[in-house]
Amino acid sequence: MKQLLVIGSVALDTISTSLGRSEEVLGGSATYFSISASFFTQVNLVATVGRDFPEEHRSLIKSFGVDIRGLETKQGRTFRWEGSYIDDLNCAKTINTQLNVFADFRPRIPEEYKNSKYVFLANIDPDLQLFILKGLKDRQIVGCDSMNYWIQNKSTVLKDLLKEVSFLFLNDAEARSFSGESSIIKAARFLLSLGPRFVIIKRGEYGAILFHKDAVSLLVPAFLLETVRDPTGAGDTFAGGFMGYLAKRNRITGEVVRNAILYGSIMASFTVENVSVGRFTNLKKGDIETRYKRFRSLIMA
Amino acid sequence: MKQLLVIGSVALDTISTSLGRSEEVLGGSATYFSISASFFTQVNLVATVGRDFPEEHRSLIKSFGVDIRGLETKQGRTFRWEGSYIDDLNCAKTINTQLNVFADFRPRIPEEYKNSKYVFLANIDPDLQLFILKGLKDRQIVGCDSMNYWIQNKSTVLKDLLKEVSFLFLNDAEARSFSGESSIIKAARFLLSLGPRFVIIKRGEYGAILFHKDAVSLLVPAFLLETVRDPTGAGDTFAGGFMGYLAKRNRITGEVVRNAILYGSIMASFTVENVSVGRFTNLKKGDIETRYKRFRSLIMA
Repeated sequence: MKQLLVIGSVALDTISTSLGRSEEVLGGSATYFSISASFFTQVNLVATVGRDFPEEHRSLIKSFGVDIRGLETKQGRTFRWEGSYIDDLNCAKTINTQLNVFADFRPRIPEEYKNSKYVFLANIDPDLQLFILKGLKDRQIVGCDSMNYWIQNKSTVLKDLLKEVSFLFLNDAEARSFSGESSIIKAARFLLSLGPRFVIIKRGEYGAILFHKDAVSLLVPAFLLETVRDPTGAGDTFAGGFMGYLAKRNRITGEVVRNAILYGSIMASFTVENVSVGRFTNLKKGDIETRYKRFRSLIMA
Repeated sequence: MKQLLVIGSVALDTISTSLGRSEEVLGGSATYFSISASFFTQVNLVATVGRDFPEEHRSLIKSFGVDIRGLETKQGRTFRWEGSYIDDLNCAKTINTQLNVFADFRPRIPEEYKNSKYVFLANIDPDLQLFILKGLKDRQIVGCDSMNYWIQNKSTVLKDLLKEVSFLFLNDAEARSFSGESSIIKAARFLLSLGPRFVIIKRGEYGAILFHKDAVSLLVPAFLLETVRDPTGAGDTFAGGFMGYLAKRNRITGEVVRNAILYGSIMASFTVENVSVGRFTNLKKGDIETRYKRFRSLIMA
């Protein structure tokens, strides 16, 4: 088992779905990622919040065993995001984004984090992602997420960054946009040519595809749920389960990567069952194993 | 191996995709179904065409070993459908439908077909589907497809019909519309309550879900292709591979049904690689086995 460092956002989200509205709940890519990964390995979190960040949220993240010495509190307000899934449960419509303290985020890596062998660069400015990597000389495995905004506005630095990345996580629309290809196979081939050893294309409620060595390597459907309450954070939770499992096993073999995709899928399926990270507060390792076995039988694995 | 009877349409299709336009090519649900199933078992076709139906199309269907003694030629023009995939490769926009001889179709089952133990009722008027079933006293296994038009306009007879059905094939939108449920699990549970032993929800490029005994039984992604040329007939080809494989094995066990879904998926993946049934003219049984093995490894089965 190796330590896993994540850099990303810790946020206050306001989310509307057809089931109702949740105001200023705990959110952010690093939050979802770290809580998900905490079920598999030791997670070290790097992010920033404002002085208005509720103490109960800080305690909640810590209660999962996540090291939050890298969670800086700055003068100002915490990053806020407001989104709606009323029109489409699979695709958030952003109503409002307030970067607040996140706008001037200059990450600092605590000394105690420096031996993190596994790193996940959640979706933030690629300049910051690259900066973090340079501070982690002993890193072995790097996972990376991004989004259309950076693909369109910082593609040069993003391409530099991808040379250092082992696992790139993008959704299908992002992969198509980055590559200019409508075929997802061609899009993934383009992404692999930029450096990542593996590319994982996330398809929301339809699952994920793993690409490796110029070709499709795995096709995995999503675990089917009767009710989805809030899809926020599903992608980061997927990455958290995936990278957490890798760090736990500390070997990159076909079998480990396959299982990492399954655990990532399972963790994402838990997230969407409740608002914010609510589903994890009472989640047991046994629940994960039970659903993992059920998932394997449903996909015939 | 048992004989498999299919009743449905044999049509002339005009199809536009971003790759071009194909005029008056061989189409129809019974065409796609029977050619796909012919790779697994003896298929008996019941349908009607007009006097304008090209002899070469008749010969082509026959060349797959399909028994076409039930393909009636009537005074008038063959059923025509025109569709476009220019806006969305996953969803045909109907430009024009001319029922022609199909409007007064009164199916006749040749004596030689009467011992067909497996039956597939492709998407036609549920009154005709029920009429066909009543003429097949020795039937053992019945598959059935339908569409929103019949769900909305003939739901009473469709519900009567479903009591006789072993395998119901619907796409996700049809299942939601029939049940009034947005959750696909709840929709499938409603459909199962109407009688079918198994419900198969087709999700186009995202694969299929098998439901059985009130619950999800299998989640299968679609075989991922680099280029899709024409998605027409994918659903009927899927059903053809599925029912053909069942008839070949002539046993309904978990293992047989699982494999039937895989073979159905594989046959659908071949169809969309070319316009009309063009991909099947040079398809070998070995090609099917090769892709089946590749598919199993991609889904970890």
